[in-house]
Amino acid sequence: MLFRRLKTSGLAQHSYILECGDGLALVVDPRRDIDDYLRIARENALTITHVLDTHRQEDFVQGSAALAAATGAAIVAGTHESFGRADLRLRDGEAIDIGSTRVLAFETPGHTPESVSYAAYPRNAGGRCWGVFTGDALFVGETGRTDLTDPARTAENAGTLFDAIHDKIAPLGAQALLFPAHGAGSACGGAIADRDDSTLGIEQHTNPVFTRDRDGFVEHKLAEKLPRPPYFRHMEAVNLDAGRPQPSLSRIPSLQPGAFRGQAADACVIDTRAPDAFAGSHVPGSYNIWLDGLASFGGWFVHGDEPVLLVTDSASDVGTAALALARIGIDEVSGALAGGIEAWREDGQPIDFVATTSAVQAARWRDEGSATILDVRDARERAEGHIGGALHVYVGDLGQNLPAVGKGERLVVHCSVGHRSGIAASILRRHGYTNVHNLLGGMKAWEALGLPVERAS
Amino acid sequence: MLFRRLKTSGLAQHSYILECGDGLALVVDPRRDIDDYLRIARENALTITHVLDTHRQEDFVQGSAALAAATGAAIVAGTHESFGRADLRLRDGEAIDIGSTRVLAFETPGHTPESVSYAAYPRNAGGRCWGVFTGDALFVGETGRTDLTDPARTAENAGTLFDAIHDKIAPLGAQALLFPAHGAGSACGGAIADRDDSTLGIEQHTNPVFTRDRDGFVEHKLAEKLPRPPYFRHMEAVNLDAGRPQPSLSRIPSLQPGAFRGQAADACVIDTRAPDAFAGSHVPGSYNIWLDGLASFGGWFVHGDEPVLLVTDSASDVGTAALALARIGIDEVSGALAGGIEAWREDGQPIDFVATTSAVQAARWRDEGSATILDVRDARERAEGHIGGALHVYVGDLGQNLPAVGKGERLVVHCSVGHRSGIAASILRRHGYTNVHNLLGGMKAWEALGLPVERAS
Amino acid sequence: MLFRRLKTSGLAQHSYILECGDGLALVVDPRRDIDDYLRIARENALTITHVLDTHRQEDFVQGSAALAAATGAAIVAGTHESFGRADLRLRDGEAIDIGSTRVLAFETPGHTPESVSYAAYPRNAGGRCWGVFTGDALFVGETGRTDLTDPARTAENAGTLFDAIHDKIAPLGAQALLFPAHGAGSACGGAIADRDDSTLGIEQHTNPVFTRDRDGFVEHKLAEKLPRPPYFRHMEAVNLDAGRPQPSLSRIPSLQPGAFRGQAADACVIDTRAPDAFAGSHVPGSYNIWLDGLASFGGWFVHGDEPVLLVTDSASDVGTAALALARIGIDEVSGALAGGIEAWREDGQPIDFVATTSAVQAARWRDEGSATILDVRDARERAEGHIGGALHVYVGDLGQNLPAVGKGERLVVHCSVGHRSGIAASILRRHGYTNVHNLLGGMKAWEALGLPVERAS
Amino acid sequence: MLFRRLKTSGLAQHSYILECGDGLALVVDPRRDIDDYLRIARENALTITHVLDTHRQEDFVQGSAALAAATGAAIVAGTHESFGRADLRLRDGEAIDIGSTRVLAFETPGHTPESVSYAAYPRNAGGRCWGVFTGDALFVGETGRTDLTDPARTAENAGTLFDAIHDKIAPLGAQALLFPAHGAGSACGGAIADRDDSTLGIEQHTNPVFTRDRDGFVEHKLAEKLPRPPYFRHMEAVNLDAGRPQPSLSRIPSLQPGAFRGQAADACVIDTRAPDAFAGSHVPGSYNIWLDGLASFGGWFVHGDEPVLLVTDSASDVGTAALALARIGIDEVSGALAGGIEAWREDGQPIDFVATTSAVQAARWRDEGSATILDVRDARERAEGHIGGALHVYVGDLGQNLPAVGKGERLVVHCSVGHRSGIAASILRRHGYTNVHNLLGGMKAWEALGLPVERAS
Repeated sequence: MLFRRLKTSGLAQHSYILECGDGLALVVDPRRDIDDYLRIARENALTITHVLDTHRQEDFVQGSAALAAATGAAIVAGTHESFGRADLRLRDGEAIDIGSTRVLAFETPGHTPESVSYAAYPRNAGGRCWGVFTGDALFVGETGRTDLTDPARTAENAGTLFDAIHDKIAPLGAQALLFPAHGAGSACGGAIADRDDSTLGIEQHTNPVFTRDRDGFVEHKLAEKLPRPPYFRHMEAVNLDAGRPQPSLSRIPSLQPGAFRGQAADACVIDTRAPDAFAGSHVPGSYNIWLDGLASFGGWFVHGDEPVLLVTDSASDVGTAALALARIGIDEVSGALAGGIEAWREDGQPIDFVATTSAVQAARWRDEGSATILDVRDARERAEGHIGGALHVYVGDLGQNLPAVGKGERLVVHCSVGHRSGIAASILRRHGYTNVHNLLGGMKAWEALGLPVERAS
Repeated sequence: MLFRRLKTSGLAQHSYILECGDGLALVVDPRRDIDDYLRIARENALTITHVLDTHRQEDFVQGSAALAAATGAAIVAGTHESFGRADLRLRDGEAIDIGSTRVLAFETPGHTPESVSYAAYPRNAGGRCWGVFTGDALFVGETGRTDLTDPARTAENAGTLFDAIHDKIAPLGAQALLFPAHGAGSACGGAIADRDDSTLGIEQHTNPVFTRDRDGFVEHKLAEKLPRPPYFRHMEAVNLDAGRPQPSLSRIPSLQPGAFRGQAADACVIDTRAPDAFAGSHVPGSYNIWLDGLASFGGWFVHGDEPVLLVTDSASDVGTAALALARIGIDEVSGALAGGIEAWREDGQPIDFVATTSAVQAARWRDEGSATILDVRDARERAEGHIGGALHVYVGDLGQNLPAVGKGERLVVHCSVGHRSGIAASILRRHGYTNVHNLLGGMKAWEALGLPVERAS
Repeated sequence: MLFRRLKTSGLAQHSYILECGDGLALVVDPRRDIDDYLRIARENALTITHVLDTHRQEDFVQGSAALAAATGAAIVAGTHESFGRADLRLRDGEAIDIGSTRVLAFETPGHTPESVSYAAYPRNAGGRCWGVFTGDALFVGETGRTDLTDPARTAENAGTLFDAIHDKIAPLGAQALLFPAHGAGSACGGAIADRDDSTLGIEQHTNPVFTRDRDGFVEHKLAEKLPRPPYFRHMEAVNLDAGRPQPSLSRIPSLQPGAFRGQAADACVIDTRAPDAFAGSHVPGSYNIWLDGLASFGGWFVHGDEPVLLVTDSASDVGTAALALARIGIDEVSGALAGGIEAWREDGQPIDFVATTSAVQAARWRDEGSATILDVRDARERAEGHIGGALHVYVGDLGQNLPAVGKGERLVVHCSVGHRSGIAASILRRHGYTNVHNLLGGMKAWEALGLPVERAS
Repeated sequence: MLFRRLKTSGLAQHSYILECGDGLALVVDPRRDIDDYLRIARENALTITHVLDTHRQEDFVQGSAALAAATGAAIVAGTHESFGRADLRLRDGEAIDIGSTRVLAFETPGHTPESVSYAAYPRNAGGRCWGVFTGDALFVGETGRTDLTDPARTAENAGTLFDAIHDKIAPLGAQALLFPAHGAGSACGGAIADRDDSTLGIEQHTNPVFTRDRDGFVEHKLAEKLPRPPYFRHMEAVNLDAGRPQPSLSRIPSLQPGAFRGQAADACVIDTRAPDAFAGSHVPGSYNIWLDGLASFGGWFVHGDEPVLLVTDSASDVGTAALALARIGIDEVSGALAGGIEAWREDGQPIDFVATTSAVQAARWRDEGSATILDVRDARERAEGHIGGALHVYVGDLGQNLPAVGKGERLVVHCSVGHRSGIAASILRRHGYTNVHNLLGGMKAWEALGLPVERAS
């Protein structure tokens, strides 16, 4: 019985393919680039007949429509109208049989109103629930955020979610395997555990939705305060039609430095190298979004149909970067710098720099009063501990909330390890700050060195 | 928290690598070819510090010693003397901490006297057992065979195993994930379920060790009657020293047809192509063991240090075949036929043939009485249903128990689908039977066509 | 200076990518699947600015239009109207400069009226011709066939070709490297040498166009008598527009046996396994065209827009097979048998067989007069030697010229090694011949064994 | 006829495998890591029977002995005693036949006294030389350096080489293909053309050995002044025995930051990242040798059996780096930093920085007199043009010839593009210079911007 979890790096999104018997298979919450599902099916002599959507995704382009088109599979969803397109709508508690596997749908709203979980009962699992696909309702160690549909109704949604999980999911039993749509690092939940494998029984002893009572859980969700990427609205619109097919990624032109420069003025230039490489030299005006962060952060900085130009570490990263952007609906990658930053430099094109610093040096400057510290992490992280006296603006909001310090003053920007502060440093350079230092190692290094941390009381 | 199951095709062997915190990792029951563990560790910035052996393996060469040598890791085992080499011996119930993960050892004898299971408690799993590495004690849907140490004590061992699982494993809780050392298709257990993911809670409703009482379970084990490959004894000796390193697989010489023929007389020639390809033409005297069956069946036919010569479908299969053999301790692959059977034929070398047939045709012959049917499946399979009037000799025993029919009489040989009957057909050709037909599709096709099946009463 | 030859297996087609300086590159005679050119360009920081067509290809779909669309490159051709689409038309002797490389066009008709060769002069090659892209005019050891446009004018075309090579190519000098559009095995030339690397100086001592005088060369071309695949006409039409983009190959559905059988009646079923595997069992009515022969022979048997169903050795061969078909314009692959022939057999579906035989056995039957031998090689091969008394029908014509022997009589079919006789055997089975034997090893084995060969006097 | 050139990145070394007929193949000048030859042979059904050494290599560990051991092939060499080990010694003009291919040996000393070239005559090349393997005697556009055996005899050796090429190689004819042992970028020749494909006819119009007379050629060689890496002596000793087998590269331990730091004090730490990434943060005291430069420059800085520790961009670079080092005989890679520089930083370990600068900024500082410029290219490059007023020390000599400027003074270090200046910057940091700027883009950017260049008159 083939069962495979496909993890989408950058989005921490999990989709699944499950063999159901008689050569048939189902896929849960496919991403836009569907070739992996097709390949796995072909290699294992399976025919994909059902695509299960747990909810209308807000953080990436769904592949449901593309996969259905490629295979003839039926799109399965709940009855709520927020599922725009579906071929088969299951009511709460309703079952379908695929091959020798029974699948039951349960409405589990709270994260979004239409959210559905699917409990799977393979033939040889003894009549008990073998595993449950919980979408964004129940994660490992956490639940889906409840502020997305309307921040004002976060508490109400949290209560709804609590009830759904207790009424619909918990009764499936401690033995049931848990298959959520996201792992640690997703923007759809707070402190998702960095452990993929879990069961309802383990959650019952670790997950706030079980370890707290209803009020305590609502309080927990109210305290989450997660950033809300602006492109989410766009995704919801696209996904009302179950997503859309993916553009070709091999066709992105290699632009020689002169041609790249010519197009850069009207484009969003993204440099996907590590922040220290970016610090050492980069195309003036470019954003620095590290490769694996592109799917999470690209959507904050690329606007509408603005063309994107890429600067990457290696040629093979061009496709990886374009795929990450495509997964969040950014299809207009109009070129990549041929030969990367080296060709650019050797061509005599202008380069720009950012300074880097260490926690030790930053602490010294702070103690001397010779630098302003800027924390660009999110509110939840900051609440867990911060450097005394540091300003705080979330990286996603920085362009609209520039720090009120002189453009030439020494500014040390930090996040948890140095990636998001790399984005922030590039934003600050774009806005004319000339003395920006990226604190490499970030809060992690700071704490590892035992430097003083303030915690909100 | 990285956790990866590595499945060894052909042996249906499962080994595991688990991130334990602080950059440390443990590996459970490694196979001889250890590069995958090293690669995964490197790619995930992990240092392997502990190698856990659940028991002295009898069906493959352990990689524990090789992995310890390559990484400096400690080999962890139980206290029983059958664990030859170990750096750290845990008593029943004793714990070690690796990074932030606690591991408890439990003695779970029955399959072998030294068998140990390891229960893992990662930091973020709430103090309950997250998962248990059960080796060959508890599989998904089955338990380890209890006849290996001494067939006469099968029942006694079964009782011991029943008690161990009920006393040591069951108390870990329904929520615990189950990580056994084998999946469906292994020679170490009977009807292992073809589903990798399970929990103790699921087993409690499906596994005979839980669904039957002690006597019923003993009866179930007595009825198993599994073949015992002759190379097992050799493995046990090798593994008393925690295995041994693997030879280089890229160095196998490509032999031109003339040179191959020259060496074939003193070697065991194995043709790894599919049985229908083998039927269509092959090197006279060669065994036909399909590629993915090599690790299970090679050990039945290669004796001692006899050199092996390979005929494969493609050049890339040479390495795959040699690796499969190396995994069971057969290191003397002295050459592969350059250009495969095509080069052989074009060189004018002698070729031999086997006939193939379909279930429909075989049934007709049987009804006419114009063919003898020979079933080469194992006793357990045969007991579940067989073709009326068919002779029965297990494929592994066929060379020593040739059917008492004329060498020129029509003989239809079958197994479940046609692979093992391919081996059998090649054995019969070697012994001079000239009218051998391999029933392609085997019992599966026979049953799919609704042809009559007899069941032992 | 990057220079890469890309060989298209099956078609023996060669295309080229050449770095020209300043980051620019040209591509000569691209195939339809253009991703390799794009990948090489990207990995080497090159921008493809020119696509050179040597002639309108008749044996495969050109990628010129697709590559121009993906890169913005200009399509370069000669002035003859048979080049349907071109962005830049060079007259005889006219030059263009790309980066620091000069390219001169020379009209070299004879194979086709529009054929052009391109001589390359990189900056650092001392002012002499470095290499010449000769398309189908001059091959290694051979020239392009001259019968394609009109068999009646073969001699006239041969004279034209002789003159063009002596007048335009030879003067480039002995030092010039030779880069033709085809290697050994192509349907576009007779005895192309199986050596890729050559120079004009080497050709002057080995190639009939140089070692013979004009009349002797014309005679040589008249004697060629090459088969003319029926799909060539279709290719010429498609390529008048410089080819067309390629369909997606990952989207071919995996069909379970029942569904496959349902569609097979209205489709052309092609089994791409080796002929001995096909002999051992196959889907009744299927053609057996070995994987690497699909691009050469698929076009003989698939008609118009007839859907194609595939039976392959492994799942990964499905994409390979579909690509081979796409390269010759066959895009309607409507499915592949999930699990291959094994799944088919196990499902109890009907299977069919062909017999195989060896040269030794075939010779015995021939001597006894107990078999008819059928030679399906082409006329040129047969002229070089054949088995006495063998019938002769080219494999491509066999469906229309069935042998006049009883359907149940023993028929041994052979080609050079056994692949084309595999196709022939499948055709004969389709037409009801029940006693067909494929001579594995073919004429090569026959000759290696020193069996008697007759040569036309 | 399979023929393949294998290019060893970093060393610009070219080796070759040639199919000779009858399934036999020869290999010329194999590198130490021989798996590619074995794989190609296997995939093409070839048996390697002869390994041809053109001379005792001085810049890398030969694979001749390892390849002979793996295949049973004979090592072929000339008669000179500097070929330590050989199984077959050919005299000047002597031939051997391998399959249907004739190979003639010609003594072509000058680069080294024992150098031999091999001319190949495949069966179907018309009796003329098809191609010649010239080792380090004749390159494309250049000849082997003549100063290695004894700098004082550079002129004498140059004359010897001139004579050998004119007497032995030139007569092979303009049509002959040229297959040298090195391409552009090798330390074994000066201005080797960056074009791999050439013929003797092309060389006759472009190569100084042909375009100059004997005296002019000697003068050309005297002017070369190439650096001589210190590890060359070691290679010569190793290669007297035809090289030695390669160590396993998968076994390099991943060290967590604390363990890495513990070992760093007694090791040579090499950071293989790009120079701008190194500039942005690095392990204090580490050398910065970019990945593709490791085979050329590692031998300058690793001494004797000193253990090497690696810091790489990605985990997959560890193997690449270790292979590059192994190719030049550095086998003691005792660990790699797990998680790279990011894990190091996050662990709070100390980091160091180098500044980077652009040509524009460097020119401004130079005009102001606020920086010293240090040119670390070799003498030949410097002679072709340099920045006025720049100091000059070759990067390989820098540790022994530190610039006489204050340790805190601004020092701009440059090479051609920024890689070797990255090495230099790391050396300067090791020696306490605190204000070092690496000029990214180097001389290439300087010239592209039209900044003033001085040329030696």
